Amino acid sequence: SRLAKKMKIRPRVSFRVNPEIKVSTHTRIATGIKKSKFGITCGEAPEAYKLAKKLGAVSASGIHVHIGSQIIDTKPFAEALKKLVSLSKELKKAGIFLKYVNAGGGLGVRYNREFPATLREYSRVILKHAAGIAPHLILEPGRMLVANAGILLTRVVLVKNSGGVKFIVVDCGMNDLLRPTLYDAFHDIVPVCFSDDRKEDFYDIVGPICESGDVFARRRSLREVFAGECLAVKSAGAYGYSMSSNYNLRPRPAEVMVDGGKDRLIRKREKLQDIIGTVPRRFAKRRRR
Amino acid sequence: SRLAKKMKIRPRVSFRVNPEIKVSTHTRIATGIKKSKFGITCGEAPEAYKLAKKLGAVSASGIHVHIGSQIIDTKPFAEALKKLVSLSKELKKAGIFLKYVNAGGGLGVRYNREFPATLREYSRVILKHAAGIAPHLILEPGRMLVANAGILLTRVVLVKNSGGVKFIVVDCGMNDLLRPTLYDAFHDIVPVCFSDDRKEDFYDIVGPICESGDVFARRRSLREVFAGECLAVKSAGAYGYSMSSNYNLRPRPAEVMVDGGKDRLIRKREKLQDIIGTVPRRFAKRRRR
Repeated sequence: SRLAKKMKIRPRVSFRVNPEIKVSTHTRIATGIKKSKFGITCGEAPEAYKLAKKLGAVSASGIHVHIGSQIIDTKPFAEALKKLVSLSKELKKAGIFLKYVNAGGGLGVRYNREFPATLREYSRVILKHAAGIAPHLILEPGRMLVANAGILLTRVVLVKNSGGVKFIVVDCGMNDLLRPTLYDAFHDIVPVCFSDDRKEDFYDIVGPICESGDVFARRRSLREVFAGECLAVKSAGAYGYSMSSNYNLRPRPAEVMVDGGKDRLIRKREKLQDIIGTVPRRFAKRRRR
Repeated sequence: SRLAKKMKIRPRVSFRVNPEIKVSTHTRIATGIKKSKFGITCGEAPEAYKLAKKLGAVSASGIHVHIGSQIIDTKPFAEALKKLVSLSKELKKAGIFLKYVNAGGGLGVRYNREFPATLREYSRVILKHAAGIAPHLILEPGRMLVANAGILLTRVVLVKNSGGVKFIVVDCGMNDLLRPTLYDAFHDIVPVCFSDDRKEDFYDIVGPICESGDVFARRRSLREVFAGECLAVKSAGAYGYSMSSNYNLRPRPAEVMVDGGKDRLIRKREKLQDIIGTVPRRFAKRRRR
């Protein structure tokens, strides 16, 4: 408010409210949300809006809720929005009229055998409840839009047996796609060139990083592949490149967009120079041998 | 071997051997190692050395073992090296004499209440066993050298109560230091300016990233701090910057080396341009508003 006055503008602000949903069938979401670091509680919200109104220099016209990501069912969305409906009623009584509601929380996608709600089911639930809160609706469906639009292409470096396990070693690692290591996330992995006459077996598909956690899949059924062939790690469009790192001093991969029949390089493969670009020149001098 | 012949060189090579240690008191290490993706088994090793000798163009003069990282006790090192001693004896009988032994696996450091073996204890065990394998010894003590040589400085953005929890929100996130999120790792966190008259309380210390996992410490006892003050996240010298990412489009921090009383900038703070540097220019054009 102080800044806004100084700059002579009247910015619109939203408060992020933690709906603290207690849904016994969604304990992971429910507990995650109850002690979540995000937002203010529903109980604190009216006070915040009233204070903003009193200060006058900002327009507290929005409300934001986010209940998590990769949500399969529509029920938590409904529960969260119901809380905002009663909150907005309370605000109306105090002369505060919301213009925007951000019904955050991402609808789930299918990585494996999930059956996420359809877009029709999702939109029906959102529209039904959001209409009672504010006229303008904002959604955050990032994962749903891009997760299954991206694959991570990787080349098989080696196929080996060790300690009773069959390993497929690939040239991408946890630095390129962190989800399997970080969340034990499932990503479907398929050979790029499919051949019916190859026999199926169970493999651990692992990367080249110096960590035992650098594993994309364990005991995964796959048709036989050989060194030099390519695999596609599916559903890598969301939280793929965005979480990638240079761990083990590995340059990050290129990104190619396939648009209809056309492919376009939308991000170049990193070079060593890109990784050490922020090292001051006097330390980054190459020593000749 | 084919490449070496073509290039008319005779490179020295090592085989990485998986010692498959079954130590009942170190199940985490033992199981991790038994089904590990790394290396060939001790049983396969003689065949590999014999094949290399037969091929002739490479000198298979090294052996490498790595039993894990952050190892507190010297016993697993001894067990692993004992396996290499008998392996090297077997190789000697076949006329293969090892010159190098890489006794990898990192001696642990103190993050919290660990009592890692001292350097004296560690070196006694390593020297005792490695001498029987090869005359040249290679070690990989990276974490031990740098983990406690680095701290991550961060500024407090906000202190708040929510859902019965006291939160300290800091301006560094899991993109800067992934260990707490990835391994539930403990990092000691202390105020930079220490004040005896501040009272202690329990806090969740969290970052600004859009994930519930972006937490550096839960229910951590700390003296009161206020927004704008700095905290030091200790033991951040190993697997800190090396695992950092641009998640949430966050530029990575600067690195400053303190050498005696002098400080030197050894890595500049990243700018947005550094993050989008590999995006082809036609996509990265700035649009004027």
